[in-house]
Amino acid sequence: CYINNCPVGGKRSLMNREIRQCMPCGPGNRGHCFGANICCGEDIGCHIGTSETLMCQKEDYLLSPCEPTGRACGRNGGKCASSGICCTEQSCAMDLTCDIRTIYASD
Amino acid sequence: CYINNCPVGGKRSLMNREIRQCMPCGPGNRGHCFGANICCGEDIGCHIGTSETLMCQKEDYLLSPCEPTGRACGRNGGKCASSGICCTEQSCAMDLTCDIRTIYASD
Repeated sequence: CYINNCPVGGKRSLMNREIRQCMPCGPGNRGHCFGANICCGEDIGCHIGTSETLMCQKEDYLLSPCEPTGRACGRNGGKCASSGICCTEQSCAMDLTCDIRTIYASD
Repeated sequence: CYINNCPVGGKRSLMNREIRQCMPCGPGNRGHCFGANICCGEDIGCHIGTSETLMCQKEDYLLSPCEPTGRACGRNGGKCASSGICCTEQSCAMDLTCDIRTIYASD
């Protein structure tokens, strides 16, 4: 489940487990789910509510919490999702701080 | 040009012209550009920074201003762009007010 949207059991399990990357998605599985309707990847940009995001809805049914990796951005707990794009579980915005050179740097 | 981002000449021309819909884009040209990196359509969802949005950069070079049609949404002058998605020129967010039943209703 998406870490900010896990049921109680899932959130509790957070303490005992390593947080994994969310499900792969998109063309050639080259992206990862950022939310139930959002799929982004370095090479593929971001898809919102497209056919490429359908599989991201399955993440809601997994018990263990997931969180996208990457540099923090924006004011709502976002992560850099592709070059120049910052996403949360609910939205994506153009963001110059998500420059391709820094996108996979950690905080 | 995108109406909020037109050069001075473009903005002036606003007074004399009807504002047109922004360029078509996406699979089968079934979407319209919302910004230089955003393409959305009722059937296709929203693409941000994907191969489908490359043609949306050309809109910046057109002199006449364009603006997406559709119901206003969000707090930043957005328009409903696809079912459950509200976009500005710079971002897209999940938005329950952009229900498929109302997306093409005007204000």
